[in-house]
Parts: sequence; structure tokens; C-alpha cells
Amino acid sequence: MVFKAETAGSDDLKAIISAVSTLVDEATFVASAEGITFRGMDPSHVALIDISWPNSAFEKYECDGDIRFGVKIDELGRLIKRVGKKDKIEIGISDDNKLLVTISGTKKYKIRMIESSSSETPLPKVTYDAKMVMDLQNFDRILGDIDVVSEYLTVTTKGSKSVFSGKGDSGEVSLDVKGGDEGVREITASAESTATYSLEYLNPITKAIGSAAEDITCEYSESKPLRLEFKVSNIGRIHFYLAPRVDS
Amino acid sequence: MVFKAETAGSDDLKAIISAVSTLVDEATFVASAEGITFRGMDPSHVALIDISWPNSAFEKYECDGDIRFGVKIDELGRLIKRVGKKDKIEIGISDDNKLLVTISGTKKYKIRMIESSSSETPLPKVTYDAKMVMDLQNFDRILGDIDVVSEYLTVTTKGSKSVFSGKGDSGEVSLDVKGGDEGVREITASAESTATYSLEYLNPITKAIGSAAEDITCEYSESKPLRLEFKVSNIGRIHFYLAPRVDS
Amino acid sequence: MVFKAETAGSDDLKAIISAVSTLVDEATFVASAEGITFRGMDPSHVALIDISWPNSAFEKYECDGDIRFGVKIDELGRLIKRVGKKDKIEIGISDDNKLLVTISGTKKYKIRMIESSSSETPLPKVTYDAKMVMDLQNFDRILGDIDVVSEYLTVTTKGSKSVFSGKGDSGEVSLDVKGGDEGVREITASAESTATYSLEYLNPITKAIGSAAEDITCEYSESKPLRLEFKVSNIGRIHFYLAPRVDS
Repeated sequence: MVFKAETAGSDDLKAIISAVSTLVDEATFVASAEGITFRGMDPSHVALIDISWPNSAFEKYECDGDIRFGVKIDELGRLIKRVGKKDKIEIGISDDNKLLVTISGTKKYKIRMIESSSSETPLPKVTYDAKMVMDLQNFDRILGDIDVVSEYLTVTTKGSKSVFSGKGDSGEVSLDVKGGDEGVREITASAESTATYSLEYLNPITKAIGSAAEDITCEYSESKPLRLEFKVSNIGRIHFYLAPRVDS
Repeated sequence: MVFKAETAGSDDLKAIISAVSTLVDEATFVASAEGITFRGMDPSHVALIDISWPNSAFEKYECDGDIRFGVKIDELGRLIKRVGKKDKIEIGISDDNKLLVTISGTKKYKIRMIESSSSETPLPKVTYDAKMVMDLQNFDRILGDIDVVSEYLTVTTKGSKSVFSGKGDSGEVSLDVKGGDEGVREITASAESTATYSLEYLNPITKAIGSAAEDITCEYSESKPLRLEFKVSNIGRIHFYLAPRVDS
Repeated sequence: MVFKAETAGSDDLKAIISAVSTLVDEATFVASAEGITFRGMDPSHVALIDISWPNSAFEKYECDGDIRFGVKIDELGRLIKRVGKKDKIEIGISDDNKLLVTISGTKKYKIRMIESSSSETPLPKVTYDAKMVMDLQNFDRILGDIDVVSEYLTVTTKGSKSVFSGKGDSGEVSLDVKGGDEGVREITASAESTATYSLEYLNPITKAIGSAAEDITCEYSESKPLRLEFKVSNIGRIHFYLAPRVDS
């Protein structure tokens, strides 16, 4: 079985590791002829990450079958975060069944693999009524503004206007965003939609992607899961799904 | 009752919150037609802060009576520290008796109020014999130099010269400052004066004001309280009083 | 007895204190007509630092006998780290037998001295077969690359090529360095040599010297101690010796 994937730099892999590590400690990636994918949920099954990293995003890519490889994400992350922005990273599997990571052709790491989980994780089936496209930085700022008083974000979208709000012991906050505001590309809603999501999940994933993505697309429907799509340069898809908060 | 105060930026309020939070967890502000004031002591009654923020310092200011509002200072601080340097902050009281803080017209916070304390805190009556005016940065550096070996600062001023000193388990330090030294605007003493003050209070207030003030005026008399005056641009007065250390 | 040493700036003393503090809490320096020296081992006798700071490195230097002075290294370090890069530091002994440290002529510290240890520490007698000269930054990066998976560094040098490697629970790493690589001045070995050293000692000393040295010379022999020489501008010699790890 042949598997060898070489990146042109380290930004993509850093963003992927960063995103995945907000949800799980151990991650199983799947490599096929099409590229590398990851799909996984946090232990409480509230959030899901779905990543597709297509073969076209690599400098070189060879894979003649389906390979699953599981790693402790912090063990892989510890070495990747030291890699320079422009250093090539080559990933493969060694003869003794370890993850082979070669940096710029000279540093060779072999990282132990762990038993990979093989449960299929289906994606939520949702028709999204509301859609916001904005600067990731802007989205991050909104989350922070709500976080000051609340552990949850409530968002109501009607037409081209969204109201973000939150409430906690110390007080409450509400802030309006319209399509056309600085850093806001688009807001649309086919039906007025209100839902509440936990900042405990939204904050870390947004910070994890950080400067790796410029834009974020946020879609949701009334009391349904939300989907974030991060536009990271060479990665086909980083989708983040989050279940709504159900009032108890 | 009408109360509405709008600032031109966030620097003043940040400096005030920062200063107040070095002494107390809960703060009662008083708004009147003349502006907003705060006066409070730390729990052990060693230090006192006296702030006057005149109506002229605001972009818009309306207040037709005396209003006392108490807040947990960290709850207000958490949101104010996120505000951009040039963002307008509007403060008012909501119909449901919460502190209404509107940032740049779009972010609206309601912060809970707490029972406000109403004890009158008299200012120490002292005739100050010694006076030093210097860069706040310079003053901060002197405190740090003493702090290396001592928990207390002793200062002796005679004519246009001050000697700062300290002593602790690891050793002692003494440093001379004269009017005319770099960063020292003025030193005068009508009588030779020596007093000792706790760095536990001096360090935090000096760091809290930080870059918000350029100059500091420090006045004291032999074995009497010290008064610091911070020149923060639009704030009429930030006075900090500190009782001298009495040798036990 | 006369002892007075004045530096032109603070970089040298900062580097010395930083280096010494990675090994010991209490340090005895020896001043003689030739200059100031320090030699000491860590409590487990695995590492040794040998420093010679010649009289020629000082702006002014006077010492008419042999003087030993012991200090708690963090008590001295606390004040030295506040000293500006270009501030002169004058060191002497006060009449009441304290270490007198005067900064730029105006700040005068007296630091308590501790009983100085007087055991002679002999240097390891080793003929070094392998030698590497490289940028300190480059050496630091290699240590960090190994540290990702291992607590020990194994180095094998043959001809003008070294292989650094390490192994731990999470995996293994190997990286090749040749004389002529970027940031590598020289690699030579009179005999193929392999030895293993603890990163617990190598990492702190390398970071402690940090930007104070540009180059490092690393010498060792098969299963023998290693010697690092840091080229710090005015300091004649900072040598760091480290015992090899013996497989248990």
C-alpha cells in the first residue's frame, strides 16, 4: 500500500490540528485516492467537525487505497507547531506502522499510532434558513462581546439583519448586525430564525482557526444545528456543526 | 430622572475602572449635574481613591439629580476592556434599574447594579510639606527598583532632592532623585520630610493608571499620608491617598 | 582589601547570572587580580559551569587579593534584570560585608552575602573526538526538535556529519546536520562518536544564554561528558559540562 502526502507549507496542517484538537484528544484520519478526511464529534456529541483536504491541495499526493490512521492529536500537534510556515511536510506510514512525518526532508519523526475508531458519524440533515457570511475576525469579536456576560449565544435573523444576544448573572447584551456593515459580506434569511448555541464550543473553534481563514459562513435554522464553514486556503472544507441549546 | 453620559473614547473610563479595581470589588459612583465622582477606601482603610470626572469631559452629559449606582467593578471592567480606544461609550440607567452601557451605538449591555454603599468617606486633612512632580514611568521605575529588596518605600525630601530607600531580608537600596533629573519636573520641600509607605498599594495603582497618565504629582509630609495625583487627559482628578506605615 | 569592578553595560552579568541560575540557588564567585570566576555543579553533580570573566572585560577593575563572595543567585538576579542594557554596574564589598551593587552611579544596592562554599570542583578531563560549531539559535532549535518526543538527545558524529536523535513514548526523531549547512560553521570528528545527554540540562542553559551569545561550540566523545562553550562578547569563557546518560 502506498501513501505519501507532501504539503507546500505548514499553515493547512496547523489549522486542521488546531481545529480537531478543540473537540477530541484522539483523532482518526482517513486517506484515500481523493485526499485526506477527518470527521469526529466531541465526547458529549454536541459538536462535529468535518474536514476534507483534497489531493489537489498537496504538492505531491499518492495513495492507492483507503488508509485509516489514528493519532493522539497533541503528540502530532507538538511537532507540527514548531514547523516553519514555508517548510514542506511529508506524511506517510513507516514499515513498523508509525506515522512518518518528514519536515523539509531533514527532520524525520515517527509518531506512534493509536487504534483508530471506525464508527461512522453521519452529518446532521438540516435545511438552513439563515445565512451569514463575514470576516472571521468580526465573528470572533461578536462571540467575545457576548461572552462578557453570557455562556450562550442567541441569534435571531430576519431579512438581512441579525441580532446576537446573551444573558447571564451579571447582565445581558444585544448587538445588531446587518448585511453591508463593515466586515459583513451577506446576511439572508428565508424565514425568521432564532436559536441558541453554547459559546463553550463556538469560542475555541473560532480561535483555533484564527488567522488561517479570512471568512466564515454561518448557517442555521430555528432551534436547529448551526454549521460554520471556514475558508482556509488549500483545504476543501472545514465544517463545524453545533447542536442548539435546548431550554431545560 | 434623566441620566445619560457619553464619552468620546474609552481611555478615561478604562483608567478609572483600572484604578478603582486596585482597591475595591464593589464600587459606588455618584452622578450629579456636575459630573461623575467616586470615592472609596480599601477594606483595611489604608488607601483611598478620590475621582472627579467633570461633565465637561464628556461628549454629551445630562443628569438632573443625584444618582448613586453601585457595580461589581470586574463585571463592568470585563466589557469596557474590550472597547476600542475610539469607541464612544454611553452610560445610563435602564427602566428595569440596570446600568445601561452602549458601545458605539450598536452594542447594548445591561449590567446589574448592587446596593450602593452610602457612607461618607472624608479626605485626610494634611498640609503637604514635600512635593515631587515626575513622569509616571519614572515613578513606576523607582517603585520597582525599591521593590526588588523591600516591601516598603521610605522617602526623604530635603530642598530639591529626594532619597528613596528600602530594606528587606535580602538587602537594602537607596536612590537619589533631584529636581531637573531626566523625567523629574520638580522637587520641593518646605521642611525636611521622611515617611514610609507600603509598596503593596503604591505598585498596583501606579501600574493600573499605566500609560493613561503622563505625569504624577506626589505630595506628603513627615509621617503623614501621601497623596498621588494622576494627570489623566479628560479626568478632572484622580487622587490616591495612602496612610504612612507606622513602625510597630 | 580593595575590590571594585565596573562593567560597561549589563549584558555580560545578565548572561552569567542567567547561566548560573540554571544549576544552583546559591553561588560563590571568586575575584582576584585576574578577574572574576565561578565554578559550580548542580546538586546531582551531572552538570558543571565554569566561567572566567577577565579583568580586561571591565571598564574599571581593581582587586588586590583573593575574595570569595557568595550570594543567593535569585536575589542578585532580581535587581540585575531591571538594569538597562547600557547602564554601568559597579560591584564591590561594603564595610558591613555586603555585596555593594551600584547602578549608573545613582542606585545603590547592598545585597546580603551567604557563607561561600569552598570545595574545589575539578574539571572533567576528556579528550574530545567530536566538535561542532554552530549558531546558538540553530543549536537551540535542534534541542527543541528532539524535545518534542524525547527527554534525551543522542548525537552521533562521523566525519563532518552529525545525527541528532531522540526517542520517547510518543515516537522518535532523527535529524541530520552537516558542516556547511545554514548556521553550521564546522563539524569534525577524529573518531565516530555517539553519546546521550539529558535535555533537562541542555535546554535551560541554552535558553539562559539566549541572545547573549551568537555561537556555540559543542565537543564530546563516545559516552563521555560533553562541553559547551558559549561565545559571550566580553566574557572570556562560559563552559558548560554535562555527564553522559548511562543506560540503566
